[in-house]
Amino acid sequence: MDASEIELLLKSVHEGQTSTSTALERLKNLPFEDLGFAKVDHHRDLRQGFAEVIYGRGKSPEHVAGILRSMLSARKTGNILITRANLQIWDAVHEIYPKALFHELSQSISLRRSKAILGKGTILVVAAGTSDIPAAEEAVVTAETLGNRVEFIYDVGVAGIHRLLRHRKQLCAARVIICVAGMEGALPSVVGGLVAAPVIGVPTSTGYGTSFGGLTALLAMLNSCSSNVSVVNIDNGFGAAFVASTINRA
Amino acid sequence: MDASEIELLLKSVHEGQTSTSTALERLKNLPFEDLGFAKVDHHRDLRQGFAEVIYGRGKSPEHVAGILRSMLSARKTGNILITRANLQIWDAVHEIYPKALFHELSQSISLRRSKAILGKGTILVVAAGTSDIPAAEEAVVTAETLGNRVEFIYDVGVAGIHRLLRHRKQLCAARVIICVAGMEGALPSVVGGLVAAPVIGVPTSTGYGTSFGGLTALLAMLNSCSSNVSVVNIDNGFGAAFVASTINRA
Amino acid sequence: MDASEIELLLKSVHEGQTSTSTALERLKNLPFEDLGFAKVDHHRDLRQGFAEVIYGRGKSPEHVAGILRSMLSARKTGNILITRANLQIWDAVHEIYPKALFHELSQSISLRRSKAILGKGTILVVAAGTSDIPAAEEAVVTAETLGNRVEFIYDVGVAGIHRLLRHRKQLCAARVIICVAGMEGALPSVVGGLVAAPVIGVPTSTGYGTSFGGLTALLAMLNSCSSNVSVVNIDNGFGAAFVASTINRA
Amino acid sequence: MDASEIELLLKSVHEGQTSTSTALERLKNLPFEDLGFAKVDHHRDLRQGFAEVIYGRGKSPEHVAGILRSMLSARKTGNILITRANLQIWDAVHEIYPKALFHELSQSISLRRSKAILGKGTILVVAAGTSDIPAAEEAVVTAETLGNRVEFIYDVGVAGIHRLLRHRKQLCAARVIICVAGMEGALPSVVGGLVAAPVIGVPTSTGYGTSFGGLTALLAMLNSCSSNVSVVNIDNGFGAAFVASTINRA
Amino acid sequence: MDASEIELLLKSVHEGQTSTSTALERLKNLPFEDLGFAKVDHHRDLRQGFAEVIYGRGKSPEHVAGILRSMLSARKTGNILITRANLQIWDAVHEIYPKALFHELSQSISLRRSKAILGKGTILVVAAGTSDIPAAEEAVVTAETLGNRVEFIYDVGVAGIHRLLRHRKQLCAARVIICVAGMEGALPSVVGGLVAAPVIGVPTSTGYGTSFGGLTALLAMLNSCSSNVSVVNIDNGFGAAFVASTINRA
Amino acid sequence: MDASEIELLLKSVHEGQTSTSTALERLKNLPFEDLGFAKVDHHRDLRQGFAEVIYGRGKSPEHVAGILRSMLSARKTGNILITRANLQIWDAVHEIYPKALFHELSQSISLRRSKAILGKGTILVVAAGTSDIPAAEEAVVTAETLGNRVEFIYDVGVAGIHRLLRHRKQLCAARVIICVAGMEGALPSVVGGLVAAPVIGVPTSTGYGTSFGGLTALLAMLNSCSSNVSVVNIDNGFGAAFVASTINRA
Amino acid sequence: MDASEIELLLKSVHEGQTSTSTALERLKNLPFEDLGFAKVDHHRDLRQGFAEVIYGRGKSPEHVAGILRSMLSARKTGNILITRANLQIWDAVHEIYPKALFHELSQSISLRRSKAILGKGTILVVAAGTSDIPAAEEAVVTAETLGNRVEFIYDVGVAGIHRLLRHRKQLCAARVIICVAGMEGALPSVVGGLVAAPVIGVPTSTGYGTSFGGLTALLAMLNSCSSNVSVVNIDNGFGAAFVASTINRA
Amino acid sequence: MDASEIELLLKSVHEGQTSTSTALERLKNLPFEDLGFAKVDHHRDLRQGFAEVIYGRGKSPEHVAGILRSMLSARKTGNILITRANLQIWDAVHEIYPKALFHELSQSISLRRSKAILGKGTILVVAAGTSDIPAAEEAVVTAETLGNRVEFIYDVGVAGIHRLLRHRKQLCAARVIICVAGMEGALPSVVGGLVAAPVIGVPTSTGYGTSFGGLTALLAMLNSCSSNVSVVNIDNGFGAAFVASTINRA
Repeated sequence: MDASEIELLLKSVHEGQTSTSTALERLKNLPFEDLGFAKVDHHRDLRQGFAEVIYGRGKSPEHVAGILRSMLSARKTGNILITRANLQIWDAVHEIYPKALFHELSQSISLRRSKAILGKGTILVVAAGTSDIPAAEEAVVTAETLGNRVEFIYDVGVAGIHRLLRHRKQLCAARVIICVAGMEGALPSVVGGLVAAPVIGVPTSTGYGTSFGGLTALLAMLNSCSSNVSVVNIDNGFGAAFVASTINRA
Repeated sequence: MDASEIELLLKSVHEGQTSTSTALERLKNLPFEDLGFAKVDHHRDLRQGFAEVIYGRGKSPEHVAGILRSMLSARKTGNILITRANLQIWDAVHEIYPKALFHELSQSISLRRSKAILGKGTILVVAAGTSDIPAAEEAVVTAETLGNRVEFIYDVGVAGIHRLLRHRKQLCAARVIICVAGMEGALPSVVGGLVAAPVIGVPTSTGYGTSFGGLTALLAMLNSCSSNVSVVNIDNGFGAAFVASTINRA
Repeated sequence: MDASEIELLLKSVHEGQTSTSTALERLKNLPFEDLGFAKVDHHRDLRQGFAEVIYGRGKSPEHVAGILRSMLSARKTGNILITRANLQIWDAVHEIYPKALFHELSQSISLRRSKAILGKGTILVVAAGTSDIPAAEEAVVTAETLGNRVEFIYDVGVAGIHRLLRHRKQLCAARVIICVAGMEGALPSVVGGLVAAPVIGVPTSTGYGTSFGGLTALLAMLNSCSSNVSVVNIDNGFGAAFVASTINRA
Repeated sequence: MDASEIELLLKSVHEGQTSTSTALERLKNLPFEDLGFAKVDHHRDLRQGFAEVIYGRGKSPEHVAGILRSMLSARKTGNILITRANLQIWDAVHEIYPKALFHELSQSISLRRSKAILGKGTILVVAAGTSDIPAAEEAVVTAETLGNRVEFIYDVGVAGIHRLLRHRKQLCAARVIICVAGMEGALPSVVGGLVAAPVIGVPTSTGYGTSFGGLTALLAMLNSCSSNVSVVNIDNGFGAAFVASTINRA
Repeated sequence: MDASEIELLLKSVHEGQTSTSTALERLKNLPFEDLGFAKVDHHRDLRQGFAEVIYGRGKSPEHVAGILRSMLSARKTGNILITRANLQIWDAVHEIYPKALFHELSQSISLRRSKAILGKGTILVVAAGTSDIPAAEEAVVTAETLGNRVEFIYDVGVAGIHRLLRHRKQLCAARVIICVAGMEGALPSVVGGLVAAPVIGVPTSTGYGTSFGGLTALLAMLNSCSSNVSVVNIDNGFGAAFVASTINRA
Repeated sequence: MDASEIELLLKSVHEGQTSTSTALERLKNLPFEDLGFAKVDHHRDLRQGFAEVIYGRGKSPEHVAGILRSMLSARKTGNILITRANLQIWDAVHEIYPKALFHELSQSISLRRSKAILGKGTILVVAAGTSDIPAAEEAVVTAETLGNRVEFIYDVGVAGIHRLLRHRKQLCAARVIICVAGMEGALPSVVGGLVAAPVIGVPTSTGYGTSFGGLTALLAMLNSCSSNVSVVNIDNGFGAAFVASTINRA
Repeated sequence: MDASEIELLLKSVHEGQTSTSTALERLKNLPFEDLGFAKVDHHRDLRQGFAEVIYGRGKSPEHVAGILRSMLSARKTGNILITRANLQIWDAVHEIYPKALFHELSQSISLRRSKAILGKGTILVVAAGTSDIPAAEEAVVTAETLGNRVEFIYDVGVAGIHRLLRHRKQLCAARVIICVAGMEGALPSVVGGLVAAPVIGVPTSTGYGTSFGGLTALLAMLNSCSSNVSVVNIDNGFGAAFVASTINRA
Repeated sequence: MDASEIELLLKSVHEGQTSTSTALERLKNLPFEDLGFAKVDHHRDLRQGFAEVIYGRGKSPEHVAGILRSMLSARKTGNILITRANLQIWDAVHEIYPKALFHELSQSISLRRSKAILGKGTILVVAAGTSDIPAAEEAVVTAETLGNRVEFIYDVGVAGIHRLLRHRKQLCAARVIICVAGMEGALPSVVGGLVAAPVIGVPTSTGYGTSFGGLTALLAMLNSCSSNVSVVNIDNGFGAAFVASTINRA
């Protein structure tokens, strides 16, 4: 409800077509309706036009099923993504929506009700090692479900730099790049130096000892000598893909 | 130098127009020229078309002056930015290029040789408190020097949420938002919930005791419950603006 | 036993109504009785007039049952609270006191032997996300068992600020507010800016990666730019409610 | 502006006494006016009825003087507090308002334009060692400036427990207690066990080596085995007194 | 082997009573024999006259049994202590030495072959809460097995200071005091202020959230304002009792 | 492919012996062929002439079996090492290659197809305590599989310095020494002071409380007062042996 | 005042020899008089018979002079120690008490009014490197001022183990050993393995990078594989000597 | 003094050529002479044949001069290195030995009395950025002074990977590589993947915010996915070069 709508309402009151009490009722909620949030009613939900998201961790299968049914009945279109799910949740979802897909490595579930491409370019997901693939897959599934063209390159760690350089063209063609890496987290620095696009670093909890569950990779990415790198939380492939989508749809 | 150029060169060799030794000389650097890096010869420099950047900290005025003269003679156009400078550096720069501007709060120096706007939308810089302004100004100066339309809103910390809400329209109109905040670093979460654009968090070293020089703000931003937030290093207004530019020019 | 009681005792000795040895016996424990602690014989127990509390973690069901029986026989009135319990403890307690209530989310058990309201205003518990509800419920159950009027608002994280603002009146009406939040822990800052009452922050271990089991939320709350915020340990809903009770009963 | 005022406005529009455009103008700012924030225009300022506060650190004497003049002309009554000031700021303030007081240990400046007592009980500030006195004094000055009756007890560290016990009556009589301690930060635990009032712990940066600038004292206070203890940031005497004031005025 | 023994050997060589090669053989190992270490052949073993100790964690029951049999056959007297054992180890030990005792709370096993008291005074073990008893018991069992008179006082946390003060005489009578405490770790500071004897602090992993597995208690003890406090590793009741024994036997 | 080869190719183009398109094809891959990496196609693989290595953690038995079969068929000679394996992987490997050896303590599997000694001296592995043996064994197995002469000395912690000194000659004879130690990690300092060879420290996660999973030992080794010490990650016996091999084969 | 004294007082009341009000007065202060603390009135002061101590850091010369004069006039005998002093304090002290000694390396001042030896054995202070001498000297001066026989051995770091072994007899003869070391903090482990006496580790802030101001040495000492080691705060030579005195006087 | 020398001595005693007391005198120091340590009398000194080293930090110019004079008179040959010096030390050294060289960036002083090359191959020092040059220069000066052929490549950070690849041949030709890098510390990983030689990582304190004074670079290097990397302390160019020398001389 913007200024012109308020003006119309006031005119209508002035002309006696709308009663004072009816107008009061409508204006009472103005501060919030005006923000345009009416449809935003889950913590990590996405804005209209994007998909809707359920964060599965810590939720019972029944809980997820309830939210999902509510979403499916409220909107007849649009994709739905369930992150950090498990097999029990998958069983419950599958029963409700048999065409749902379970992405095992990242424990994600996607309900693709639309294949429409909403992003303008390609989101490229690059992962350093095989242990980084779960977070990378979460990014891939999220970006696809949010309506983006997605490509990925896996196992191109910096200890074998030639493997990465082989993909130079693909790297330079992407509109946004998501770099997933654990251990020393050096991949975003090297990739960032090769491209002009924004690079989003996803540190992973890969490694042992002083990898400190991904902290080392995170710190390394925050100190990248490539200036086009920003960073999200450890293992947060979802967040990286969400940020990438906001960039790709601008 | 792409494949077609190599092909042309090879044809020229074949046809005797180019000698073998001349071709060898050109091809010798192929791996690097092919990467399109020829002009990239300083650590944090920017890609062609962007401005060039000198990181001032730890450099003597003479050193900065030398680099600057080399840049000015090498290219007759394009902006130049000097970050983390000081008054001694400013004196040296001012003598070389009297039209340079010194941005005192952020200790940045800009040489605007072009006012061309290269970005497509607006980069909005939002700062929580007055102590966050230095990092915010570094972001503003960087984004402008890199050829972007820039707006800023200062002193809109989350403890007075109404002050922030007053700017809702401006927030929603930006293509990229840079949120600068110290202490509890909550601003990106609140702003991120109000907009659909990507939000880049810049934690600052504002605060005392358990603010740990910006670490608390950084951690808070990495754990933002708004999914459109990514983060750069503490006080890294430059990096945030650089990332924002790559997004805004896509 | 205060000075006037000692005086009475001494008079009684003087007048021969109390023997020297009887008086000695009573005075022997004076240093401690004088402190008014006679009934305080468990580590986290509450002062007289409040409820009594058993910290369940690490105690066997038999151990809890023994303490509970002792409490029930020692005092015929007053509420009893068991925190950090489990189903085994619940079985033991339920058998002893069938009217006890098990609060599953927070693993608390309450024995309400009195519904008397001892606090003067309302304690309002506000939780940011659904994962913060266990700690929030511990605060609610504790505050109720300690004889307070309690209200709660759940799922009003700062990423959807309008949801929180909807409750402005309720927030302003509370005498004490307990803010429960994990991840970036920003809720107390926003709430603190909306009210004049004291706000007690409870960081929760919600989150992953750099949430560091609640440390990030804790640090954020300690650095709140709202000056009316103080903080308790991670997940310590009990402690927050205890502090709130001391405030509410003043 | 509450619902009844809106109703009056709408009636006035209906009756033609107020034009549509005038009403629109007034309603446009509704969300914020409705929040009742009009007078809250500095980051750490206090709600009406309390004093106003300027955080001096990082502000130039001219900057502080400007803010102070604006405050003095805007409101003819009410106390003003300047925290974390220095001698330069003091000179500037003293010139503007000769009756101002400089509290040297805590580097605070107070302008007492009113001696009215607004709090209902006494705020007692207890400090463990002589090095804790600066933070304690900041608490004392803040609490007094905010209109509270304040008492203090210094140098009662837990290594000489009898010195503390000597003050038992004074401790039990306070409505709120602020405990200031560095090193092992044990004072709030011992005091908390002696009283039924809320205790606010202020860890200080006193100590060396593993005191880690107050972190050890902070952690100790967060883990207090006395349940009536909550905590503020290191050296934050101001915050503790602010929280205590909100409690004392309830 | 000291200088006089070497002299005798050399004389014997000089006089031809000992052959050069025999003398060479004896002198070859001189550096080590001279150190008098021949009997010290396990990592944490105790010097002669003390008991012998096996650190059970990470050792298989068979491994422990093997070491134990070797100890029992090598020396016919002296106590043996097995720390950090488990039920499997207990079964193995019990079979070999039926008079062994299993101390369940601390998972220690003691073989008392001698009741001789070797220490000169009393070692007093004081524990703050019931959760600290396992580490306290490890200290008690260790000190007893090492031949000391041992007393203990449990559940005297600083939040109920009167409970501790009740034991003043016992505290002052001890030659060494071991203070076991988790959470805020304040007990050694208070006890240290009451006595002139050395106090050894044992931080425990009791607590949750910011207790950080005992780190908070450790840091607090290292920063004790009582100067007679030294500290051992978290949960290291064994080490504290070992140190106490070296003090008590001096 | 070096400059002279490019020159030959260009001459051949010039003389018409090689077509432009053929030359283009060959030059296109130059950057990578020129690096000579063609055979390096697994993340932690070893350079030609060394063994090949599979990092077992997080890989399914099927996955390991697949990689192993590919390695065995690709090269008919050379050793293969599988680190951080488990019994399931062992079963799968054993079936494929019955002569493989399972090293239980370090959970390593070695396939010795060659007993050739490639290193020039001896690699000596020294371990402080019995709990350090798993990491030490990983170093021993790795070094042997990589073609080195390997010796080891176990259980020579610094608390019994004579045990270490007994091995002085063996220590001085080694070309590289790997020192494995947990707890206070002092062994490399003492050993480093006794020899002129390079010492590689391997901190282990042995210990409890403030050993912080090996962090304490790591920090100690990084601060060694012996200048010939360098360090690898916690528990990284493999890495230490790999580094030692590169030294021993120089 | 013990039970028999109370009994006498009660009898006296009973017999009318003491009035009720007089008895009340005497009983009122019982808890504290009974503690016998009347003379303990400075935070880190020492029990009667020991020296008195002033902690100089953060105190003005005037402040120290005032305390010192009060001490000198209150007691005509006994040593006085001023730790963490500076030249300004030294000037003030020297004027008051010309025979005072300034120990420059440790910035300590001692006033020896008595040379009486109160300890039973020798306290031996051992320092690893030359940078550790300030803390070591603080320990030496403290121990001497507290009335102990003190010896010291400097510059015997573990990287040259033979230098330490040369002092074996002296090490074994000491009743208590204080080991001062920075960097990897290994000295207490090696010394602890050589002797049967208690060893007190003093980590120092010597070093750079990952020595983290002494934290690494502290952690190493807490994880010592020698069981007779306990630890004090970083650079706390005073505390170590104080603990050693309590041991030496037992 | 080895076994044969002892044998000779014993024979001489046997034959009466050496008196018992003379032999005793010689044997008394046997343990240490036998270790071959006689010339090792400074903490970080180097073994015979290497240079001698003085660690300048914290030493007065007079102190350094004294040590230097003693070294110069004791041995007439061999190089001497002074690390972490300053201009005052340089003045003192220069006066004593005018041919000494001051290396300003690394604050090192070298006295080259011999140009003999003792190492077998080349030590290559590679630095990521210009701010890493001080630590790199310390490594270069140390390695040269220790008698090695040294080469260096500066300013080849991973954000411009082509700059590094240009030096591939030089990298592959080195016997040992020292990689110096701050910020994200990725250089050793990339270099390690290009060569078969051992790589020693030197993290530097370059950077700001989350670089944590070099900790981030250190952690990254410890988690390198290149297996031929070991690490030394932050900014420890000296240590890296010392280790490299031990490798290069093997």
